[in-house]
Order: sequence, then structure tokens, then C-alpha cells
Amino acid sequence: MKLTDILSIKPVYAHCDLPCGVYDPVQARVEAQSVLEIMKKYPNLDHEEDRWRAIFIKEQRADLVKQHLWVLWTDYFKPEHLEAHPDLHDLFWKATKQAGACKKTVDPAEGQKLLDMIDAIDEVFKATKQA
Amino acid sequence: MKLTDILSIKPVYAHCDLPCGVYDPVQARVEAQSVLEIMKKYPNLDHEEDRWRAIFIKEQRADLVKQHLWVLWTDYFKPEHLEAHPDLHDLFWKATKQAGACKKTVDPAEGQKLLDMIDAIDEVFKATKQA
Amino acid sequence: MKLTDILSIKPVYAHCDLPCGVYDPVQARVEAQSVLEIMKKYPNLDHEEDRWRAIFIKEQRADLVKQHLWVLWTDYFKPEHLEAHPDLHDLFWKATKQAGACKKTVDPAEGQKLLDMIDAIDEVFKATKQA
Amino acid sequence: MKLTDILSIKPVYAHCDLPCGVYDPVQARVEAQSVLEIMKKYPNLDHEEDRWRAIFIKEQRADLVKQHLWVLWTDYFKPEHLEAHPDLHDLFWKATKQAGACKKTVDPAEGQKLLDMIDAIDEVFKATKQA
Amino acid sequence: MKLTDILSIKPVYAHCDLPCGVYDPVQARVEAQSVLEIMKKYPNLDHEEDRWRAIFIKEQRADLVKQHLWVLWTDYFKPEHLEAHPDLHDLFWKATKQAGACKKTVDPAEGQKLLDMIDAIDEVFKATKQA
Amino acid sequence: MKLTDILSIKPVYAHCDLPCGVYDPVQARVEAQSVLEIMKKYPNLDHEEDRWRAIFIKEQRADLVKQHLWVLWTDYFKPEHLEAHPDLHDLFWKATKQAGACKKTVDPAEGQKLLDMIDAIDEVFKATKQA
Repeated sequence: MKLTDILSIKPVYAHCDLPCGVYDPVQARVEAQSVLEIMKKYPNLDHEEDRWRAIFIKEQRADLVKQHLWVLWTDYFKPEHLEAHPDLHDLFWKATKQAGACKKTVDPAEGQKLLDMIDAIDEVFKATKQA
Repeated sequence: MKLTDILSIKPVYAHCDLPCGVYDPVQARVEAQSVLEIMKKYPNLDHEEDRWRAIFIKEQRADLVKQHLWVLWTDYFKPEHLEAHPDLHDLFWKATKQAGACKKTVDPAEGQKLLDMIDAIDEVFKATKQA
Repeated sequence: MKLTDILSIKPVYAHCDLPCGVYDPVQARVEAQSVLEIMKKYPNLDHEEDRWRAIFIKEQRADLVKQHLWVLWTDYFKPEHLEAHPDLHDLFWKATKQAGACKKTVDPAEGQKLLDMIDAIDEVFKATKQA
Repeated sequence: MKLTDILSIKPVYAHCDLPCGVYDPVQARVEAQSVLEIMKKYPNLDHEEDRWRAIFIKEQRADLVKQHLWVLWTDYFKPEHLEAHPDLHDLFWKATKQAGACKKTVDPAEGQKLLDMIDAIDEVFKATKQA
Repeated sequence: MKLTDILSIKPVYAHCDLPCGVYDPVQARVEAQSVLEIMKKYPNLDHEEDRWRAIFIKEQRADLVKQHLWVLWTDYFKPEHLEAHPDLHDLFWKATKQAGACKKTVDPAEGQKLLDMIDAIDEVFKATKQA
Repeated sequence: MKLTDILSIKPVYAHCDLPCGVYDPVQARVEAQSVLEIMKKYPNLDHEEDRWRAIFIKEQRADLVKQHLWVLWTDYFKPEHLEAHPDLHDLFWKATKQAGACKKTVDPAEGQKLLDMIDAIDEVFKATKQA
């Protein structure tokens, strides 16, 4: 099967489906806020045990950001949304990559970028809700 | 060690801690909305396979409601909040029990009750934020 | 919907339910013993890698303590138990907070307190079994 | 922050990172094969309990397909791969949607489509390895 | 590397290690009791939704039995235990297979067999504790 | 029930079962390769935060190795395979112990041993496929 064949497959996924269509970028946002807050607190943590915990709690929170964004991208967005928002794929790719980048740094500026990207996704999300 | 001793232990948990204090009842609310939507769609599912999936997806979502509420109850709320809101424990106990009850029924009225309870928790939460 | 309305809702959760009523505080106890043992071994760990692992394995074990206690509180205990043991809510709240506190310290005295609190819960549990 | 700003952010994620770069579409493929085999066996399951189990084991396997594909898409592929394979995003979006579609059907033809899509991804993956 | 070489590798795992050596077959036993109780209740469940839930809750509990047994087998038992109890491997293999068998049946006799096997493991476990 | 009774129980698990028989040691192998690569990169990690992350990502990967091996051992292999390969149990026991050992060290030689053991398992696996 060639790539071109696959891309022209009539999708089965465009129909109404279970679960119920409750999606909200706020889920990713709450976790991203945790990531940012941990980054801000990090320089003031006195005990080394606290810094270790900060790093791996941040790792888990950043993972949850990815999870929520991936689900939103695959399960909520439909081909017609992509037509109206051709940057959709790139936006999600860069936002999930930024969540991964936040695992590797404690620089709050990177955490803020992640939040900004989620806000940009939220704007697209809201536009599709009104359409 | 007697119960009375334990209840008078000077708490170590009253201080600011890691992770970072980002809590929001909206996390429980999104999952509870999923539970309710599944209940509403349930009678209109034509294939039995869809009904099976509806029941166990609902089970998972109701579990997530419990998780988010438990974390909020234990990690966010402090002794001073309990003093100002003496019904706090009972409110969370009944809401998490209601999430359990939603696993056993497809009656949307029960899903709505769960949402109302989360809204009541949200009111207490907002009151503590302003205090 | 007001708080007072919610608290007077006729509960659907007081009836016998699935799953099967097999609850046992020993599940929380085993994990809490792990937490305590890690705390005891911690000062004798020579390699820093071992100390990092100790901290995040302790984090996971303490989380499991919380999980088992939350499930016990919400799923096992019934309104009639609460009447007989009015401190029930506070006991669970403090025990789960203490599990959280054990994430932030390597002091075995805090791990022992967690075990004592689980023992106190176990006493209440056994009393309800005999009633 | 506007969308155009975000898309021009100098990425932090283009550098070599931890974990170690071990990615392989075979992980998604093994799970997708499970999905297909369950679909094939489904009509011959005599007991209704077996059919229920088939449906929710298939649900879990399809979820694992999504997981492995999402990680591959976000963590392995780099901007230069996207330039060489401009269909990359669409390929992953459709494959993860197809994994979702496989939850809702027991038609082996849909399971086969999922496998074909993973093979197409594997071809792109191999091309990037040789580049 | 040949099989015979591998089997003669001087083991690194015989030394005391982290985590802390808290193991107890009771963890597997509690979950196995849940499996058995669900089997007993199953014929009396009136609503089909309850039967679906029973089947997949039983699936999850049987999985937890496997988990706890696997960890016990790999992490707790040492080469000297195997010498004293040459049936050890077979006992665990059959017990975990029995846990898998319990996913496929609602016959309480199979659930009871699982419990008996865990009791047999517990006897070996206790013997090693006294040695 | 005595041990000898249990070992002579007519097994229910020898029959073809759901899920679908798709097993492949490659799943364990991919995770073990991650473990090895992390070990190789470890000495060159400049920031302490990267070293902490390396240790706990390695921990998770080693756990996945165990998971995949345990499932393979219990679910795929049948009594007739054991007859043809009497070292089977010992091979899996040592391989899963080696995965545990890899959590406690950053020595690539230990990671390589784990891979060699998985290769040995793979040989047995392939032999059973051809039989």
C-alpha cells in the first residue's frame, strides 16, 4: 500500500463517536501551569531532595501536557477544522515538542512558551466551537 | 498510639510544598461532563459493542473524577479552610461516592448530581482563594 | 444548587455494590512500611544515584498509600460507620496528608507516624467489621 | 502572543536529548497486530463474556498504538524530517485517528488499514535513518 | 552469547538492594479475593451493565494478582531460596497462569484455585522468612 | 491444599485464549536498548538535572523490560515449551532480575548482559514458533 493510497482512504473517523466529545484545552493548561510554577520555585529549593523531586514531578506534569494535547489533536479535531486552520498540525507538533523541552530545562521562559502555545491552540479550539 | 494522640499531632503538612499549588476543580469537572454526556448518549447507541464501550469508558472517567477530587481534598485544602468550611470533608466524601455511584447507573440525573456537587466544591475552592 | 441541598440528597451509594467489598487496610500498610524502610536505609546509601532512586521510589510508594486510603475511605465506609466514628473523615484526611508529608522528608519518625495513623484506621475498620 | 510568533520561535527541541533516541515503529505494529487478531477472532467467540473482553482488550491495544505513534511523531521526528516528508503530520494524524476508529469496529479491514498506515510510517522512519 | 554462558553469569542481583525488601503475598491475596467474590456475585447480577462491569473489574483485579506475584518472584526470591524450594518457578508460573485463567471464566472454583496457589506461595515465603 | 495437589491440577490455561497470541520479545528488546543507551550517555551528561532524569527514565525503561518479559513468560509459553526448554523458567527469572539490576547501575556492561539475555529468550521463542 502506497502513501498516496493511504492519504486518500475514505475516513471512518469523521462520524460521531464515543466517548462523548467533551474536550477542553484547559486540561493541558492546568498541567502546564504546574510545570511553570515548579520552574519558578526551583532556584529557591534548599534541600537537594526537593530539587530531585521537582525535576521528576515536572517530568510527569510535562508528560500529562503531551497526553492531553495528543488526545485533543487526534480525537477532537476533524478534517474540516484542518482546512480552516492549516497550521493545526504544526501547532500541536511544536507544542508537544515544547512540553518535551520543558523536561530538560528549569528556565521559566520555556514554561511560559508552552503556556503561550496552549493558548494559541485554545484560540483555534474556540474558533472551531463557534463555527 | 491512640486516636486522640494522632489527631493532636502537630502537622508537618501545613507548610507550602512541592508540587506547586496549581489546583483547579475544573479537572474533575471535565471528566464529570464526560460521564454525563455518555449517560445521555447511552440510550441511542445501536450496537451492543458501543454500549459495552460506553460503560467502561464511563467507569474510567468516573475514576478520574474521584482521583482529581481526592487530590484536591488532601493536597490543596488546609486546616484553616476546614475551620471556615466545616462541611468540607462531607462534601468531598459524598462527591467521590457519587462518582462511584455514576459507575453503576446510566441515569443522567445521577451524572448531573455529580456535576452539582463539583460545583459546590468549586464554590468553596473559590472562597478559599479570595480569603 | 445549594450546599444544603446537596448534603440532603438521598444517597444512591448506600446499597451493596460491585466490586465485591474486599477491602483491607493492609494494602496501605505494606506500602507505608516500604516508605519507612526507605527512610531508614537512606542515610547509609553511598552512591548518589541510589539516593535519587530512594527519593522517587519513596514518592511512588507514598502515592500508593494515598490511593489505598482514599479508596477505603470513599468505597468501604458507609454513613452508619461515620455516625459510630465521627472522627473518620479527619483521620483519613490527616493520614493521606501524612503520606504526602512523607514525600518531603527522609525522617523515619514521619514514616512511623504514617504507620500509626494507618493502624488507627485499621482499628476503626475492624470495629466496623464486628458491628 | 500571536500564532505567527509562536511558529517562528527558535526551537529548543532540535538538539540531541534524553532519553536515548531508541525509537522503533515496531512497538506500534505489535499492538496493531493484536487489534487485528482480536477482530478476526471476534465472530467465533461463543460466550458473551469473551466478546466483552475482546472489545475492551481491543480498546486498550488501540490506545497503545496511539501512544507509541504519538511519541514517535513528537519525540523522534525533527524539522529536517518534516521538510523531506511534508506528509508526515497528516500520516500520523490519520494513523492515530485510524487507531481510534478501530475501537469502534470489529471489521478486520479497518485493522488492516491501521497496519498499512503504520507500515507507511515505518517507510518514512527508515528513510530518515538512512539519510 | 550462548544460553550456557548466560546461566553462569555471576549475578549482580544477590546483594541487598533498594527498594527496601518489604514484600508480602497478602497483596496478591487481597486482589485474588476480589476476583473470587466477583465470580460468586456474578450469577445474581440483574442488569447487563453490571455483568459487563463485573467482567472487566475482574480482568483488572486478576492483572493485579499477576503483577504482585511477578514482583514477588523476581524481586524477593534469591538463588538460595530456589535451592531450598526447587518448585518455586513452577509454582509462580502456574499461579500467574491461573490468574490469567480467571479472566476467562466466572467459575468460583477457578478463583478458589488461584487463592490456594497464593496460599502455597505464602507457605514458601514464610519458610524463607524463618530460614 | 498441598503443594503437590496444586502442581497436579489439570490446567485450564493450556487452551487457545484471548487476547490474540501476538507476542514478540522485540518489545522487551526496544526498552532494554533504551536502558543501555542511557547508560552509555550517562558519563557525558553535564547538568546534574540531566543525570537525575537519566536515572529515573532508566528505572522506568527497566520496569517495562520486566513487564514485557513477565507477560511473555506467563502468557505465551505453554507446558510443552517448558518440556522442550527446561531452562525456560531460570532464563526468565535471571533476565527479569537483570532488568532490576540495571536500575541500580550505570555500567553499560550490565545493560549489554540484559540485551544478551533477551536475545537468548528470543532464540527459545523462535524455536517454539518453528516447532
